Amino acid sequence: MTQPSDERIAGEDGIIALLRPLATDPAALGLRDDCAALMPRPGTDVVLKTDPIAEGVHFLPDDPPEDIAWKALAVNVSDLAAKAAQPLGYLMALSFPEAPRREWLMRFTAGLQQAQDAFGFTLLGGDTDRRPGPITISITVLGEVPHGQMVRRAAARAGDRLFVSGTLGDAHLGLQLLRSASQAAMWGLDDAQRTFLQQRYRRPQPRLAVCEALRSAARAAMDLSDGLVKDLGRMARGSGTSAVIHLDSVPLSEPARAAVAAAPDLRPALLTSGDDYEVLAAVAPEHAAEFSRLAQAAGIPVTDIGCMRDPEAEPVVVLDAQSRPLKIGRSGWDHF
Amino acid sequence: MTQPSDERIAGEDGIIALLRPLATDPAALGLRDDCAALMPRPGTDVVLKTDPIAEGVHFLPDDPPEDIAWKALAVNVSDLAAKAAQPLGYLMALSFPEAPRREWLMRFTAGLQQAQDAFGFTLLGGDTDRRPGPITISITVLGEVPHGQMVRRAAARAGDRLFVSGTLGDAHLGLQLLRSASQAAMWGLDDAQRTFLQQRYRRPQPRLAVCEALRSAARAAMDLSDGLVKDLGRMARGSGTSAVIHLDSVPLSEPARAAVAAAPDLRPALLTSGDDYEVLAAVAPEHAAEFSRLAQAAGIPVTDIGCMRDPEAEPVVVLDAQSRPLKIGRSGWDHF
Repeated sequence: MTQPSDERIAGEDGIIALLRPLATDPAALGLRDDCAALMPRPGTDVVLKTDPIAEGVHFLPDDPPEDIAWKALAVNVSDLAAKAAQPLGYLMALSFPEAPRREWLMRFTAGLQQAQDAFGFTLLGGDTDRRPGPITISITVLGEVPHGQMVRRAAARAGDRLFVSGTLGDAHLGLQLLRSASQAAMWGLDDAQRTFLQQRYRRPQPRLAVCEALRSAARAAMDLSDGLVKDLGRMARGSGTSAVIHLDSVPLSEPARAAVAAAPDLRPALLTSGDDYEVLAAVAPEHAAEFSRLAQAAGIPVTDIGCMRDPEAEPVVVLDAQSRPLKIGRSGWDHF
Repeated sequence: MTQPSDERIAGEDGIIALLRPLATDPAALGLRDDCAALMPRPGTDVVLKTDPIAEGVHFLPDDPPEDIAWKALAVNVSDLAAKAAQPLGYLMALSFPEAPRREWLMRFTAGLQQAQDAFGFTLLGGDTDRRPGPITISITVLGEVPHGQMVRRAAARAGDRLFVSGTLGDAHLGLQLLRSASQAAMWGLDDAQRTFLQQRYRRPQPRLAVCEALRSAARAAMDLSDGLVKDLGRMARGSGTSAVIHLDSVPLSEPARAAVAAAPDLRPALLTSGDDYEVLAAVAPEHAAEFSRLAQAAGIPVTDIGCMRDPEAEPVVVLDAQSRPLKIGRSGWDHF
């Protein structure tokens, strides 16, 4: 951020001009109006989610602007993916403590473009302002599902199998690696392993391809943003069930396994840390094989980590290899 | 904020529990899912706007929480009103630097309820988090209009008459009064006048009732949030026109006139200051009488302040009583 070319963009109109090429949907009216006007397709529900990200909380001040932009969209699209919704568009409110540098904003815009292309949606409108505090990017996403077919969170039943996509805990390790240059050596990770984990923090990949499997075979689903234990607890409480999962079934990436081998104390945090942006699904036992097959066919690895059962005192019980319940100190991220 | 009952709400779930009674639309799923799912009525467009408000920028730290909540919704609904859209629902992302006090949040929730009842819509979903910086309330509103009938901003033509609703500059004066206890006496205002102006800052009234007049008779419209001169300039530039307005035609409230009588230097700022949340409309001359009649019939006073003409160097020219162009130093609020 100490480049000589640190020209700042002095006005809202200058920012909008940079963003305008992102707003290709006619609903955005070229960002030349105060509102967007979108006609949803007949027979569809509009699925809505808003989730801001802030410097120092959800991204680091020296993260590449392209990655910050990607993450701002990805964390919201991840919610749509878990609801089996296809992205339609997004609104973005940008807040800067001081006028942003042109170079930063151009790179940020490039990251938005990459994410738009990857997720198949475009900018519909938004707002910019200046205020004290961290840079904040407030995204509202719109998705669509056939009417009544959004996959719900609180609809699991006792007996349902529990699946997660991908691997968990990578982003948590990636964040530690970004915060401390010496961490990689302490965990015995090589450059490729370190980069993989850091990218899992900076570039979450919404699992949009799992949409068909969810819609065809899942009873309930949600995305994992606040840690498996906490998010699964929400699904269980909302559904009037409890959940039991097997520690050794929780899928870890090869770099995460390497880190855990070097530092076994890391293990619990991989189930409780946030920023996974993977999909958690509850699937009736008779549909489990079909769910797994459809997800794999769409290129999304999914793993059976346990099941729902009748409600108990603890919403989530984690069992070790001998099926003994484990205690986990802090249950993922709670913002308060 | 120094009440003895300063219990703080320690978790996101506690905040959601307080907000849940606001979320009566089935689309909100009782705030028990990660997303809302809304089915718009067939043949309608969904009109979308997002606009955050932040402590110290859009409201004052000691503003009553009810008023902060009202304003957060009102500034967004004001955009819908100017587009002739009826409110459908809203998403809200709340950011606090520390866990909020229960009493503050209960009063804030009461203000949201008042605004919901007044504007005819409900909470659909949202997010809460904790981060440094000012309290921020990021609202995304959804409205509906018959397909293709959103009133646009950049659709005015040379010759159109320019109307504004209500009176301008009150909120600017109200903010000065809130910032300085001695100001009212300097302007010779009594308590009722002071309270009126302060309430115009804290409790903007979106002009939803002007919807029918706009849809029937206006060519272009927008809400005034950044000051008449700047916002009218945006409409004119976007429309490929310029605007000429008469200073003495710009409607002032009785308390504002009293303040200007005591401090004539205030006059220009009333045309350039933000937070009016009134409607600016461009109306073809042959529809001007009908527009005015429909608005008045709906209880909204509107005033003809000038007209659009062919583009000139200055997007907005303000004429004095002798039709001499005036220079205005700063053209309203620019956030950068």
